[in-house]
Amino acid sequence: MLTERSVLNNIAVVLVHPKYPENIGAAARSAFNMGLTRLIIVRDERPDREAMAKMATHKAVHLIDSMEVYTSLVEALAPFSYIVGTTARRGRQRGMERTPRQIVSEMAGLLPNNHAAFVFGPENCGLANEELKYCHATSAIPTADFSSLNLAQAVAIHCYELYYGLVHEKKDITPAPQAASTFELEGMYEHLEEALVKITFLEEKNHAYWMNNIRRFFGRMQLSSKESNIIRGICRQFMWHQDHSGKDTTP
Amino acid sequence: MLTERSVLNNIAVVLVHPKYPENIGAAARSAFNMGLTRLIIVRDERPDREAMAKMATHKAVHLIDSMEVYTSLVEALAPFSYIVGTTARRGRQRGMERTPRQIVSEMAGLLPNNHAAFVFGPENCGLANEELKYCHATSAIPTADFSSLNLAQAVAIHCYELYYGLVHEKKDITPAPQAASTFELEGMYEHLEEALVKITFLEEKNHAYWMNNIRRFFGRMQLSSKESNIIRGICRQFMWHQDHSGKDTTP
Repeated sequence: MLTERSVLNNIAVVLVHPKYPENIGAAARSAFNMGLTRLIIVRDERPDREAMAKMATHKAVHLIDSMEVYTSLVEALAPFSYIVGTTARRGRQRGMERTPRQIVSEMAGLLPNNHAAFVFGPENCGLANEELKYCHATSAIPTADFSSLNLAQAVAIHCYELYYGLVHEKKDITPAPQAASTFELEGMYEHLEEALVKITFLEEKNHAYWMNNIRRFFGRMQLSSKESNIIRGICRQFMWHQDHSGKDTTP
Repeated sequence: MLTERSVLNNIAVVLVHPKYPENIGAAARSAFNMGLTRLIIVRDERPDREAMAKMATHKAVHLIDSMEVYTSLVEALAPFSYIVGTTARRGRQRGMERTPRQIVSEMAGLLPNNHAAFVFGPENCGLANEELKYCHATSAIPTADFSSLNLAQAVAIHCYELYYGLVHEKKDITPAPQAASTFELEGMYEHLEEALVKITFLEEKNHAYWMNNIRRFFGRMQLSSKESNIIRGICRQFMWHQDHSGKDTTP
Protein backbone atom coordinates (compact mmCIF):
# COMPACT_ATOMS: atom_id res chain seq x y z
CA MET A 1 0.00 0.00 0.00
CA LEU A 2 2.72 2.42 0.99
CA THR A 3 4.63 1.82 -2.24
CA GLU A 4 1.58 2.45 -4.38
CA ARG A 5 0.75 5.68 -2.59
CA SER A 6 4.32 6.89 -2.75
CA VAL A 7 4.36 7.12 -6.56
CA LEU A 8 1.90 9.98 -6.17
CA ASN A 9 4.69 11.98 -4.54
CA ASN A 10 6.46 11.93 -7.90
CA ILE A 11 3.65 13.86 -9.58
CA ALA A 12 3.08 17.60 -9.55
CA VAL A 13 0.05 19.64 -10.56
CA VAL A 14 1.27 22.75 -12.40
CA LEU A 15 -1.08 25.68 -13.01
CA VAL A 16 0.12 28.18 -15.60
CA HIS A 17 -1.03 31.75 -14.94
CA PRO A 18 -4.21 30.84 -13.06
CA LYS A 19 -6.32 33.96 -12.72
CA TYR A 20 -8.60 33.10 -9.79
CA PRO A 21 -7.09 32.19 -6.40
CA GLU A 22 -10.27 30.15 -5.78
CA ASN A 23 -9.27 27.80 -8.57
CA ILE A 24 -5.85 27.31 -7.03
CA GLY A 25 -7.53 26.49 -3.72
CA ALA A 26 -9.89 24.06 -5.41
CA ALA A 27 -6.95 22.43 -7.19
CA ALA A 28 -5.16 22.02 -3.85
CA ARG A 29 -8.20 20.35 -2.37
CA SER A 30 -8.59 17.98 -5.32
CA ALA A 31 -4.89 17.14 -5.25
CA PHE A 32 -5.11 16.44 -1.52
CA ASN A 33 -8.26 14.32 -1.96
CA MET A 34 -6.42 12.17 -4.44
CA GLY A 35 -3.22 11.77 -2.47
CA LEU A 36 -1.08 14.22 -4.46
CA THR A 37 1.24 16.46 -2.50
CA ARG A 38 2.94 18.82 -4.92
CA LEU A 39 1.37 21.97 -6.33
CA ILE A 40 3.26 24.44 -8.53
CA ILE A 41 2.09 27.66 -10.09
CA VAL A 42 3.62 29.83 -12.79
CA ARG A 43 2.68 33.39 -11.97
CA ASP A 44 4.34 36.72 -11.45
CA GLU A 45 3.27 36.85 -7.84
CA ARG A 46 1.89 34.63 -5.13
CA PRO A 47 -1.90 35.08 -5.07
CA ASP A 48 -4.00 36.10 -2.08
CA ARG A 49 -3.66 33.35 0.50
CA GLU A 50 -7.06 33.91 2.07
CA ALA A 51 -9.01 33.24 -1.15
CA MET A 52 -6.96 30.13 -1.93
CA ALA A 53 -7.17 28.75 1.60
CA LYS A 54 -10.95 29.11 1.73
CA MET A 55 -11.43 26.78 -1.24
CA ALA A 56 -8.63 24.44 -0.17
CA THR A 57 -10.30 24.02 3.26
CA HIS A 58 -8.18 23.46 6.33
CA LYS A 59 -7.41 19.91 5.25
CA ALA A 60 -5.52 20.93 2.13
CA VAL A 61 -4.20 24.32 3.19
CA HIS A 62 -0.74 22.85 3.70
CA LEU A 63 -0.54 22.32 -0.07
CA ILE A 64 -1.12 26.05 -0.50
CA ASP A 65 1.59 26.88 2.00
CA SER A 66 4.12 24.54 0.43
CA MET A 67 3.15 25.53 -3.13
CA GLU A 68 6.08 26.45 -5.38
CA VAL A 69 5.81 29.66 -7.44
CA TYR A 70 7.88 30.26 -10.58
CA THR A 71 7.81 33.08 -13.06
CA SER A 72 8.52 30.88 -16.09
CA LEU A 73 7.19 27.50 -17.13
CA VAL A 74 10.53 26.14 -18.33
CA GLU A 75 12.00 26.87 -14.91
CA ALA A 76 9.07 25.18 -13.18
CA LEU A 77 9.43 22.09 -15.36
CA ALA A 78 13.22 21.78 -15.21
CA PRO A 79 13.37 18.78 -12.84
CA PHE A 80 10.56 16.81 -14.49
CA SER A 81 11.09 14.16 -17.12
CA TYR A 82 7.52 13.44 -18.18
CA ILE A 83 5.28 16.39 -18.92
CA VAL A 84 1.60 16.08 -19.69
CA GLY A 85 -0.12 19.13 -21.15
CA THR A 86 -3.87 19.30 -20.66
CA THR A 87 -6.06 20.80 -23.37
CA ALA A 88 -9.65 21.00 -24.42
CA ARG A 89 -10.35 18.58 -27.23
CA ARG A 90 -9.44 20.00 -30.60
CA GLY A 91 -9.92 17.01 -32.83
CA ARG A 92 -6.71 15.97 -34.47
CA GLN A 93 -5.04 19.31 -35.05
CA ARG A 94 -3.15 19.20 -31.77
CA GLY A 95 -1.70 15.82 -32.60
CA MET A 96 -1.30 13.12 -30.03
CA GLU A 97 -4.31 13.74 -27.80
CA ARG A 98 -5.30 11.03 -25.39
CA THR A 99 -7.69 10.84 -22.47
CA PRO A 100 -6.38 11.23 -18.90
CA ARG A 101 -7.17 7.54 -18.39
CA GLN A 102 -4.97 6.49 -21.29
CA ILE A 103 -2.20 8.81 -20.16
CA VAL A 104 -2.21 7.45 -16.62
CA SER A 105 -2.11 3.90 -17.87
CA GLU A 106 0.78 4.65 -20.21
CA MET A 107 2.84 6.58 -17.68
CA ALA A 108 2.44 4.17 -14.78
CA GLY A 109 5.70 2.41 -15.59
CA LEU A 110 7.67 5.66 -15.62
CA LEU A 111 6.66 6.83 -12.20
CA PRO A 112 8.79 4.90 -9.80
CA ASN A 113 11.94 6.37 -11.37
CA ASN A 114 10.76 9.65 -12.86
CA HIS A 115 9.02 12.85 -11.88
CA ALA A 116 5.94 13.80 -13.86
CA ALA A 117 4.06 17.09 -14.17
CA PHE A 118 0.46 17.71 -15.25
CA VAL A 119 0.25 21.20 -16.69
CA PHE A 120 -2.97 23.24 -16.85
CA GLY A 121 -3.36 26.52 -18.75
CA PRO A 122 -5.15 29.70 -17.71
CA GLU A 123 -8.94 29.71 -17.26
CA ASN A 124 -9.77 31.72 -20.35
CA CYS A 125 -7.52 30.24 -23.00
CA GLY A 126 -5.74 27.07 -21.92
CA LEU A 127 -2.14 26.26 -22.80
CA ALA A 128 -0.54 28.02 -25.77
CA ASN A 129 1.47 26.10 -28.35
CA GLU A 130 4.53 27.79 -26.89
CA GLU A 131 3.78 26.00 -23.61
CA LEU A 132 2.65 22.72 -25.13
CA LYS A 133 6.03 22.31 -26.79
CA TYR A 134 7.52 21.16 -23.46
CA CYS A 135 4.97 18.36 -23.19
CA HIS A 136 5.57 14.69 -23.98
CA ALA A 137 1.88 13.95 -24.16
CA THR A 138 -1.37 15.85 -24.40
CA SER A 139 -4.36 14.90 -22.30
CA ALA A 140 -7.88 15.94 -23.23
CA ILE A 141 -10.94 15.09 -21.15
CA PRO A 142 -13.66 13.80 -23.45
CA THR A 143 -16.66 16.13 -23.41
CA ALA A 144 -19.85 16.48 -25.38
CA ASP A 145 -19.51 18.82 -28.35
CA PHE A 146 -15.89 19.64 -27.50
CA SER A 147 -17.04 22.01 -24.74
CA SER A 148 -14.36 23.06 -22.28
CA LEU A 149 -14.35 22.40 -18.57
CA ASN A 150 -13.81 24.77 -15.71
CA LEU A 151 -10.15 24.69 -14.60
CA ALA A 152 -10.93 23.32 -11.12
CA GLN A 153 -13.00 20.51 -12.64
CA ALA A 154 -10.28 19.62 -15.15
CA VAL A 155 -7.75 19.39 -12.32
CA ALA A 156 -10.15 17.28 -10.24
CA ILE A 157 -10.74 14.78 -13.03
CA HIS A 158 -7.03 14.40 -13.73
CA CYS A 159 -6.22 13.92 -10.03
CA TYR A 160 -9.05 11.39 -9.80
CA GLU A 161 -7.74 9.40 -12.76
CA LEU A 162 -4.24 9.43 -11.26
CA TYR A 163 -5.43 8.09 -7.94
CA TYR A 164 -7.80 5.62 -9.57
CA GLY A 165 -5.24 4.24 -12.01
CA LEU A 166 -2.15 4.29 -9.83
CA VAL A 167 -3.51 3.40 -6.40
CA HIS A 168 -7.14 2.29 -6.38
CA GLU A 169 -6.97 0.04 -9.40
CA LYS A 170 -3.27 -0.51 -9.37
CA LYS A 171 -2.04 -3.06 -11.84
CA ASP A 172 1.38 -4.61 -11.82
CA ILE A 173 3.77 -2.36 -13.64
CA THR A 174 7.30 -2.77 -14.85
CA PRO A 175 9.28 0.30 -13.84
CA ALA A 176 10.84 2.17 -16.76
CA PRO A 177 14.37 3.63 -16.62
CA GLN A 178 15.05 7.24 -15.74
CA ALA A 179 14.12 9.58 -18.58
CA ALA A 180 15.84 12.84 -19.58
CA SER A 181 14.60 15.85 -17.61
CA THR A 182 13.22 19.02 -19.17
CA PHE A 183 16.53 20.65 -18.30
CA GLU A 184 18.45 18.03 -20.29
CA LEU A 185 15.96 18.04 -23.15
CA GLU A 186 15.99 21.81 -23.54
CA GLY A 187 19.78 21.74 -23.69
CA MET A 188 19.54 19.08 -26.40
CA TYR A 189 17.01 21.09 -28.41
CA GLU A 190 19.25 24.14 -28.26
CA HIS A 191 22.16 22.11 -29.57
CA LEU A 192 20.00 20.56 -32.28
CA GLU A 193 18.63 23.94 -33.31
CA GLU A 194 22.12 25.36 -33.59
CA ALA A 195 23.17 22.52 -35.89
CA LEU A 196 20.04 22.80 -38.02
CA VAL A 197 20.51 26.53 -38.41
CA LYS A 198 24.10 25.90 -39.43
CA ILE A 199 23.07 23.68 -42.32
CA THR A 200 20.28 26.15 -43.17
CA PHE A 201 17.67 23.46 -42.62
CA LEU A 202 16.04 25.97 -40.32
CA GLU A 203 15.54 29.32 -41.96
CA GLU A 204 13.84 32.44 -40.75
CA LYS A 205 10.43 31.82 -42.28
CA ASN A 206 9.86 28.23 -41.22
CA HIS A 207 12.11 27.97 -38.17
CA ALA A 208 9.43 27.54 -35.49
CA TYR A 209 7.31 25.24 -37.63
CA TRP A 210 10.02 22.65 -38.25
CA MET A 211 11.44 22.94 -34.77
CA ASN A 212 7.99 22.16 -33.35
CA ASN A 213 7.71 19.12 -35.61
CA ILE A 214 11.06 17.91 -34.35
CA ARG A 215 10.12 18.56 -30.70
CA ARG A 216 6.92 16.64 -31.22
CA PHE A 217 8.53 13.40 -32.24
CA PHE A 218 11.41 13.60 -29.81
CA GLY A 219 8.87 14.45 -27.11
CA ARG A 220 6.89 11.32 -27.82
CA MET A 221 9.69 8.91 -27.28
CA GLN A 222 10.79 9.49 -23.73
CA LEU A 223 14.50 9.77 -24.39
CA SER A 224 16.73 8.56 -21.61
CA SER A 225 19.41 10.86 -20.26
CA LYS A 226 21.93 8.77 -22.16
CA GLU A 227 20.05 9.10 -25.42
CA SER A 228 19.69 12.87 -25.13
CA ASN A 229 23.45 12.92 -24.58
CA ILE A 230 24.02 10.85 -27.72
CA ILE A 231 22.06 13.39 -29.74
CA ARG A 232 24.00 16.26 -28.21
CA GLY A 233 27.18 14.35 -29.01
CA ILE A 234 26.15 14.11 -32.64
CA CYS A 235 25.42 17.84 -32.77
CA ARG A 236 28.68 18.69 -31.08
CA GLN A 237 30.62 16.47 -33.43
CA PHE A 238 28.81 17.94 -36.39
CA MET A 239 29.54 21.52 -35.32
CA TRP A 240 33.17 20.66 -34.76
CA HIS A 241 33.31 19.01 -38.15
CA GLN A 242 31.75 22.04 -39.82
CA ASP A 243 34.27 24.37 -38.27
CA HIS A 244 37.17 22.17 -39.33
CA SER A 245 35.94 20.89 -42.69
CA GLY A 246 38.33 21.34 -45.54
CA LYS A 247 41.23 21.00 -43.14
CA ASP A 248 41.09 17.23 -43.47
CA THR A 249 41.48 16.41 -39.80
CA THR A 250 39.36 14.54 -37.29
CA PRO A 251 38.97 15.52 -33.63
CA MET B 1 -23.77 8.38 -32.21
CA LEU B 2 -27.26 9.82 -31.83
CA THR B 3 -28.53 6.80 -29.94
CA GLU B 4 -25.60 6.79 -27.54
CA ARG B 5 -25.94 10.48 -26.78
CA SER B 6 -29.67 10.24 -26.30
CA VAL B 7 -29.34 7.91 -23.31
CA LEU B 8 -27.85 10.89 -21.46
CA ASN B 9 -31.25 12.57 -21.68
CA ASN B 10 -32.53 9.83 -19.42
CA ILE B 11 -30.24 10.85 -16.58
CA ALA B 12 -30.74 13.65 -14.07
CA VAL B 13 -28.35 15.27 -11.63
CA VAL B 14 -30.19 15.88 -8.34
CA LEU B 15 -28.73 18.19 -5.69
CA VAL B 16 -30.30 17.89 -2.24
CA HIS B 17 -30.30 21.14 -0.25
CA PRO B 18 -27.22 22.64 -1.86
CA LYS B 19 -26.12 25.67 0.15
CA TYR B 20 -24.04 27.64 -2.35
CA PRO B 21 -25.59 28.80 -5.65
CA GLU B 22 -22.05 28.69 -7.12
CA ASN B 23 -22.02 24.93 -6.68
CA ILE B 24 -25.31 24.63 -8.53
CA GLY B 25 -23.86 26.71 -11.36
CA ALA B 26 -20.71 24.58 -11.46
CA ALA B 27 -22.86 21.43 -11.51
CA ALA B 28 -24.82 22.85 -14.46
CA ARG B 29 -21.61 23.51 -16.35
CA SER B 30 -20.24 20.01 -15.66
CA ALA B 31 -23.52 18.42 -16.67
CA PHE B 32 -23.55 20.45 -19.88
CA ASN B 33 -19.90 19.58 -20.59
CA MET B 34 -20.75 15.91 -20.38
CA GLY B 35 -23.90 16.02 -22.46
CA LEU B 36 -26.40 15.81 -19.60
CA THR B 37 -29.46 18.02 -19.85
CA ARG B 38 -31.47 17.60 -16.71
CA LEU B 39 -30.75 19.31 -13.40
CA ILE B 40 -32.97 19.06 -10.35
CA ILE B 41 -32.63 20.60 -6.92
CA VAL B 42 -34.39 19.90 -3.67
CA ARG B 43 -34.63 23.18 -1.80
CA ASP B 44 -37.23 25.37 -0.17
CA GLU B 45 -36.65 28.16 -2.63
CA ARG B 46 -34.99 28.80 -5.98
CA PRO B 47 -31.50 30.25 -5.31
CA ASP B 48 -30.12 33.51 -6.65
CA ARG B 49 -29.96 33.17 -10.43
CA GLU B 50 -27.04 35.55 -10.86
CA ALA B 51 -24.63 33.54 -8.70
CA MET B 52 -25.62 30.28 -10.36
CA ALA B 53 -25.42 31.67 -13.88
CA LYS B 54 -21.95 33.09 -13.34
CA MET B 55 -20.50 29.65 -12.60
CA ALA B 56 -22.61 27.94 -15.23
CA THR B 57 -21.29 30.36 -17.89
CA HIS B 58 -23.53 31.39 -20.77
CA LYS B 59 -23.13 27.99 -22.39
CA ALA B 60 -24.85 26.10 -19.60
CA VAL B 61 -27.17 28.79 -18.29
CA HIS B 62 -30.13 27.13 -20.03
CA LEU B 63 -29.73 24.22 -17.61
CA ILE B 64 -30.19 26.70 -14.76
CA ASP B 65 -33.28 28.16 -16.38
CA SER B 66 -34.84 24.78 -17.03
CA MET B 67 -33.82 23.41 -13.64
CA GLU B 68 -36.60 21.75 -11.67
CA VAL B 69 -37.03 22.69 -8.01
CA TYR B 70 -38.83 20.44 -5.51
CA THR B 71 -39.30 20.80 -1.81
CA SER B 72 -38.98 17.10 -1.08
CA LEU B 73 -36.63 14.44 -2.38
CA VAL B 74 -39.28 11.79 -2.79
CA GLU B 75 -41.26 14.12 -5.02
CA ALA B 76 -38.17 14.92 -7.07
CA LEU B 77 -37.35 11.26 -7.57
CA ALA B 78 -40.86 10.15 -8.43
CA PRO B 79 -40.38 9.59 -12.17
CA PHE B 80 -37.00 7.82 -11.87
CA SER B 81 -36.54 4.10 -11.78
CA TYR B 82 -32.85 3.86 -10.96
CA ILE B 83 -31.49 6.05 -8.19
CA VAL B 84 -27.82 6.34 -7.38
CA GLY B 85 -26.91 7.99 -4.10
CA THR B 86 -23.44 9.50 -3.90
CA THR B 87 -21.47 9.39 -0.67
CA ALA B 88 -18.00 9.87 0.65
CA ARG B 89 -16.35 6.54 1.26
CA ARG B 90 -17.27 5.11 4.63
CA GLY B 91 -15.79 1.69 4.42
CA ARG B 92 -18.42 -1.02 4.51
CA GLN B 93 -20.89 0.43 6.94
CA ARG B 94 -22.97 1.99 4.18
CA GLY B 95 -23.37 -1.28 2.37
CA MET B 96 -23.32 -1.49 -1.39
CA GLU B 97 -20.72 1.14 -2.21
CA ARG B 98 -19.21 1.03 -5.65
CA THR B 99 -17.17 3.47 -7.69
CA PRO B 100 -18.91 5.72 -10.25
CA ARG B 101 -17.18 3.72 -12.97
CA GLN B 102 -18.66 0.45 -11.73
CA ILE B 103 -22.07 2.03 -11.37
CA VAL B 104 -22.06 3.42 -14.90
CA SER B 105 -20.98 0.11 -16.32
CA GLU B 106 -23.70 -1.72 -14.44
CA MET B 107 -26.50 0.70 -15.29
CA ALA B 108 -25.74 1.06 -18.99
CA GLY B 109 -28.18 -1.66 -19.96
CA LEU B 110 -30.99 -0.03 -18.02
CA LEU B 111 -30.82 3.36 -19.60
CA PRO B 112 -32.57 3.05 -22.90
CA ASN B 113 -35.81 2.19 -21.17
CA ASN B 114 -35.42 3.78 -17.74
CA HIS B 115 -34.78 7.14 -16.17
CA ALA B 116 -31.93 7.37 -13.70
CA ALA B 117 -31.02 9.98 -11.08
CA PHE B 118 -27.68 10.71 -9.45
CA VAL B 119 -28.33 12.26 -6.05
CA PHE B 120 -25.82 14.48 -4.23
CA GLY B 121 -26.16 15.63 -0.61
CA PRO B 122 -25.49 19.07 0.94
CA GLU B 123 -21.93 20.44 1.02
CA ASN B 124 -21.39 20.03 4.73
CA CYS B 125 -22.82 16.62 5.49
CA GLY B 126 -23.73 14.61 2.39
CA LEU B 127 -26.83 12.43 2.09
CA ALA B 128 -28.52 11.23 5.27
CA ASN B 129 -29.60 7.62 5.68
CA GLU B 130 -33.15 8.91 5.35
CA GLU B 131 -32.28 10.04 1.82
CA LEU B 132 -30.10 7.07 0.90
CA LYS B 133 -33.01 4.75 1.43
CA TYR B 134 -34.43 5.77 -1.96
CA CYS B 135 -31.28 4.68 -3.69
CA HIS B 136 -30.75 1.47 -5.62
CA ALA B 137 -27.01 1.84 -5.51
CA THR B 138 -24.43 3.92 -3.67
CA SER B 139 -21.55 5.48 -5.52
CA ALA B 140 -18.37 6.58 -3.75
CA ILE B 141 -15.44 8.23 -5.50
CA PRO B 142 -12.21 6.60 -4.33
CA THR B 143 -10.04 9.11 -2.48
CA ALA B 144 -6.90 9.00 -0.42
CA ASP B 145 -7.59 8.54 3.28
CA PHE B 146 -11.36 8.65 2.74
CA SER B 147 -11.26 12.43 2.41
CA SER B 148 -14.36 14.05 0.97
CA LEU B 149 -14.57 16.03 -2.24
CA ASN B 150 -16.08 19.41 -2.87
CA LEU B 151 -19.66 19.03 -4.15
CA ALA B 152 -18.89 20.59 -7.56
CA GLN B 153 -15.96 18.22 -8.05
CA ALA B 154 -18.01 15.17 -7.05
CA VAL B 155 -20.67 16.15 -9.60
CA ALA B 156 -18.01 16.75 -12.27
CA ILE B 157 -16.44 13.32 -11.77
CA HIS B 158 -19.79 11.54 -11.91
CA CYS B 159 -20.83 13.41 -15.08
CA TYR B 160 -17.44 12.60 -16.60
CA GLU B 161 -17.80 8.88 -15.85
CA LEU B 162 -21.28 8.89 -17.35
CA TYR B 163 -20.14 10.50 -20.56
CA TYR B 164 -16.99 8.38 -20.71
CA GLY B 165 -18.74 5.09 -20.11
CA LEU B 166 -21.92 5.66 -22.08
CA VAL B 167 -20.73 7.70 -25.04
CA HIS B 168 -16.97 8.12 -25.38
CA GLU B 169 -15.97 4.52 -24.88
CA LYS B 170 -18.63 3.29 -27.25
CA LYS B 171 -17.30 5.28 -30.17
CA ASP B 172 -14.61 4.25 -32.55
CA ILE B 173 -11.29 5.73 -31.57
CA THR B 174 -9.92 8.57 -33.71
CA PRO B 175 -7.59 6.94 -36.19
CA ALA B 176 -3.92 7.71 -35.66
CA PRO B 177 -2.01 9.23 -38.58
CA GLN B 178 -0.38 6.82 -40.99
CA ALA B 179 2.89 5.52 -39.58
CA ALA B 180 6.05 5.22 -41.63
CA SER B 181 6.49 1.88 -43.39
CA THR B 182 9.56 -0.31 -42.91
CA PHE B 183 10.56 0.71 -46.42
CA GLU B 184 10.48 4.37 -45.46
CA LEU B 185 12.23 3.77 -42.14
CA GLU B 186 15.07 1.79 -43.63
CA GLY B 187 15.60 4.49 -46.24
CA MET B 188 15.73 6.99 -43.41
CA TYR B 189 18.27 4.95 -41.42
CA GLU B 190 20.51 4.63 -44.48
CA HIS B 191 20.41 8.36 -44.96
CA LEU B 192 21.07 8.96 -41.28
CA GLU B 193 23.96 6.51 -41.27
CA GLU B 194 25.54 8.18 -44.26
CA ALA B 195 25.39 11.56 -42.52
CA LEU B 196 26.78 10.20 -39.26
CA VAL B 197 29.66 8.51 -41.06
CA LYS B 198 30.40 11.76 -42.85
CA ILE B 199 30.88 13.64 -39.60
CA THR B 200 32.83 10.66 -38.21
CA PHE B 201 30.31 10.21 -35.40
CA LEU B 202 30.11 6.63 -36.57
CA GLU B 203 33.51 5.06 -36.86
CA GLU B 204 34.56 1.54 -37.66
CA LYS B 205 34.90 0.27 -34.12
CA ASN B 206 31.60 1.54 -32.66
CA HIS B 207 29.47 1.86 -35.77
CA ALA B 208 26.95 -0.89 -35.07
CA TYR B 209 26.70 -0.05 -31.37
CA TRP B 210 25.68 3.58 -31.86
CA MET B 211 23.50 2.86 -34.85
CA ASN B 212 21.57 0.33 -32.77
CA ASN B 213 21.09 2.89 -30.02
CA ILE B 214 19.71 5.32 -32.56
CA ARG B 215 17.42 2.72 -34.14
CA ARG B 216 16.15 1.83 -30.71
CA PHE B 217 14.83 5.25 -29.89
CA PHE B 218 13.52 5.99 -33.35
CA GLY B 219 11.86 2.58 -33.34
CA ARG B 220 10.02 3.34 -30.13
CA MET B 221 8.18 6.34 -31.43
CA GLN B 222 6.08 5.23 -34.37
CA LEU B 223 7.25 7.93 -36.75
CA SER B 224 4.74 9.05 -39.32
CA SER B 225 5.66 9.05 -43.01
CA LYS B 226 5.91 12.81 -42.81
CA GLU B 227 8.27 12.71 -39.86
CA SER B 228 10.57 10.16 -41.44
CA ASN B 229 10.69 12.45 -44.47
CA ILE B 230 11.63 15.40 -42.28
CA ILE B 231 14.58 13.44 -40.94
CA ARG B 232 15.66 12.41 -44.43
CA GLY B 233 15.33 16.05 -45.49
CA ILE B 234 17.68 17.08 -42.71
CA CYS B 235 20.21 14.44 -43.75
CA ARG B 236 19.97 15.42 -47.41
CA GLN B 237 20.39 19.08 -46.58
CA PHE B 238 23.33 18.29 -44.37
CA MET B 239 25.06 16.21 -47.06
CA TRP B 240 24.48 18.94 -49.62
CA HIS B 241 25.82 21.51 -47.23
CA GLN B 242 28.92 19.45 -46.54
CA ASP B 243 29.68 19.10 -50.24
CA HIS B 244 29.22 22.81 -50.83
CA SER B 245 30.64 24.24 -47.62
CA GLY B 246 33.12 27.00 -48.10
CA LYS B 247 31.33 28.06 -51.30
CA ASP B 248 28.91 30.22 -49.31
CA THR B 249 25.72 29.29 -51.20
CA THR B 250 22.43 27.74 -50.23
CA PRO B 251 20.46 25.31 -52.36
